[in-house]
Amino acid sequence: MSDAAHLVREVLHEYGGIAQRALSRYLEQAAENDSVYRLASDYPLRGGRALRASFCIAAARVFGAPVSDAVESAVSLELFHNAFLVRDDVEDESEERRGKPALHVLHGVPTAVNVGDALTVLGLRPLMHNRSILGPELAWRVLRETERMVRESVEGQALELKWRLENACELTDDDYLRMTLKKTCWYTTIYPSRVGALIGLRHGEDLDRFVRFGFFLGAAFQIQDDLLNLAGDHDRYGKELAGDLFEGKRTLMLLHVFRHSTPKERAWLRELLGKPRAEKTTGDVRLLLKKMKRCGSLEYAKQVAHALSGAAAHEFKMAYADVPDSIDRRFIEALPLWVLERL
Amino acid sequence: MSDAAHLVREVLHEYGGIAQRALSRYLEQAAENDSVYRLASDYPLRGGRALRASFCIAAARVFGAPVSDAVESAVSLELFHNAFLVRDDVEDESEERRGKPALHVLHGVPTAVNVGDALTVLGLRPLMHNRSILGPELAWRVLRETERMVRESVEGQALELKWRLENACELTDDDYLRMTLKKTCWYTTIYPSRVGALIGLRHGEDLDRFVRFGFFLGAAFQIQDDLLNLAGDHDRYGKELAGDLFEGKRTLMLLHVFRHSTPKERAWLRELLGKPRAEKTTGDVRLLLKKMKRCGSLEYAKQVAHALSGAAAHEFKMAYADVPDSIDRRFIEALPLWVLERL
Repeated sequence: MSDAAHLVREVLHEYGGIAQRALSRYLEQAAENDSVYRLASDYPLRGGRALRASFCIAAARVFGAPVSDAVESAVSLELFHNAFLVRDDVEDESEERRGKPALHVLHGVPTAVNVGDALTVLGLRPLMHNRSILGPELAWRVLRETERMVRESVEGQALELKWRLENACELTDDDYLRMTLKKTCWYTTIYPSRVGALIGLRHGEDLDRFVRFGFFLGAAFQIQDDLLNLAGDHDRYGKELAGDLFEGKRTLMLLHVFRHSTPKERAWLRELLGKPRAEKTTGDVRLLLKKMKRCGSLEYAKQVAHALSGAAAHEFKMAYADVPDSIDRRFIEALPLWVLERL
Repeated sequence: MSDAAHLVREVLHEYGGIAQRALSRYLEQAAENDSVYRLASDYPLRGGRALRASFCIAAARVFGAPVSDAVESAVSLELFHNAFLVRDDVEDESEERRGKPALHVLHGVPTAVNVGDALTVLGLRPLMHNRSILGPELAWRVLRETERMVRESVEGQALELKWRLENACELTDDDYLRMTLKKTCWYTTIYPSRVGALIGLRHGEDLDRFVRFGFFLGAAFQIQDDLLNLAGDHDRYGKELAGDLFEGKRTLMLLHVFRHSTPKERAWLRELLGKPRAEKTTGDVRLLLKKMKRCGSLEYAKQVAHALSGAAAHEFKMAYADVPDSIDRRFIEALPLWVLERL
C-alpha cells in the first residue's frame, strides 16, 4: 500500500469513528421512540468506512473549522447515503449489501421503502441541529446544499432506471459519466467538499471550484467500484459478485464490450440485458464476463479510472490552492490515489 | 348539501385553484430540466381537491396573512402528499389512484419509488423559497414543522405495515386512532393548521392547541375515507372499490367485525387477512363485506366518525377562540361537517 493510501486509512479510521459514534447516538435515540428506526439502523450498523462523513469533516477542518462544526452535516450525509443504499437495492433488485442480505430481501419491499423514508427524515434532524452550532445563515446554506444533492441523486438514479427500462445499449462514455456525476459524485465527493468549505470558510462564495475535483474523484471512485463488483473479493466488497451483470447495470465495461462486438454478439448482448434479473443464468453472466475480459473492457475501464484520478489530482491543486499544509489537506490530496488502490 | 359543505366547496375551489396553478408552475419548470419530473407530475395533474393546500392557506389568512405568504408552504404540502400517495400505493400494492392505474402499475416499482423521491425533493424547493417571502426565522420554523410532519407520516406508515406483516387482528380502536394520528392527521390537518398559524401570527407560540382539533378532524376524515372505499361511488372515489379489504387494511370496520365474530369466523378472517393480495378472491372479499354489514360495522364506524367530527367542532372553538369572523374562519369551522358529507 502506498503512503497516500496509508494516510487515508488512518484518517478514515479517526474521522469515520467520530461520525459513526455520533450516528449511533442518533439511531439509538430514534429507536427508543419508534421501532421503525431499529430497522433503519441495520445498514448503518453493518459498518462501512464512513468515507463521505470523513471527507466532509476533513473538508471543513482544512479551512480551520473544528470537527464539532462539521459532525452534524457529516452524520446527515451518512444517513442520506444509507437511505440511497436501501432504495437502490430495492430499485436494482440487489441481493446483498455489506456482506448480508439486502433489506428488502429480509423484510420485503414495502418495509424497505418505508425504512428508506425513515432514514431520509432522520437525515434532516442533524441539519436542524446545525442551527445552534453554525448559526441560522450557515445552517440554511447547508440545507440548500442538501436539497441540491438529493435532487442530483434522484435525477441520476432516474437516468439509470430509464436506461434499464428502455434496454439502452448504445450509450457513450459521456452518458455514463453524466449519470455518475449526478448519481455518485454529487453526494460522495462534491457535497462533502462544498459543505466542508462552507463550514470552514463560513461563507458560500466560490463553492463551484469543488465541482470539477469532486467529479473526477467521484467518477474514478465509481469506476473502481464497478470493477470491484466484477473482480473483487466478495468478503471485502460485501455484495454478490458480478451482481452488476445480473442487474444489467450500464458500466463503462459493458458499454465498451458492446461497442467492440460483432452485430451477432450485440444482438445476443441486447437480448441478455433485456431479460429480467431472474431469467439471466450464471452461464450467461460468466460468458459476458469472459467476453469483457477478452475484449479488454476491464483494462480499458481501469485506464479511464486512472486518467480521472490524475485529473482529480490536478484539480486538487486548483481547488485547494490557498490552503496551508495539514493532515486534512494531505488526506484530501491522497484521495485520488486511494480510490484506485482501495479494495 | 348543507350550507357548510357548500362553503367548503367554494373555498376549496378558489384556494385549491391557486395552489394547483402554483404547483403546475413548479412541475413544468422541473420537467424542463429533467424528464423524471414529468413522471412526478402524473399524480398531481390527475386532479384532486387540494384540501391540504387550501386548509393551509385558510389557516394563514384567518390570522391575517395574505395568500402569497402561505402558497409556497401549501404547494410543498401537496408535493409531499403526492409523494406519500406514490409510496403508499407501492407499499399497499394498490391498483388505482384518482381513477387511473397506480404509478407502479404503469411504470414498475423501481421507477415509482424513484418518482416518490423526486416528489419529496421537489417538496423541499418551495420551502427554500419561503425564505425570501417569510424571512429566515419563519422559513426555518416551517421547515422544522415539515421535518416533524414527514417523521410522523413515516412512523404511522411503519405501524400499519407492521400490522399487516404480523397479521395483527386483535387491535383496538385506540390502536387505529394512534396510527391515524400519525399517518393521516399530522399531514392532512395538524400541519396545515400549525403552519398556517405560524405564518399568520409570525411566531410559533402555542401551536399545540391545533393538535387536538386536527386529530379529531383528520380521524373523522380518514374513517369517512375508509367507508367510501367500501361503499363509495367508484368514479368519484377514484380507487378500486373495497381495495382496502384486498389490501387487508386495518380499518375500524375490520376491527369491529373481528371483535364481534365467533371463534370460527375469526379463524377464517385471520386466514383471509394473512393471504397475499393476489390470493384473495372477489368471493372472499364479498363475504367479508357482507359480514361487516350484518354486524353493523359500517354503521359503527359512521358513528365514531360523527363523534370525532363533533369533538372537532368543539375543539375548533378553543383553537380559534380569539379569531374574528371571516370566510376563512367559517371555512375551517365547516370542515368537521364537510368531512362527513363529502363524497
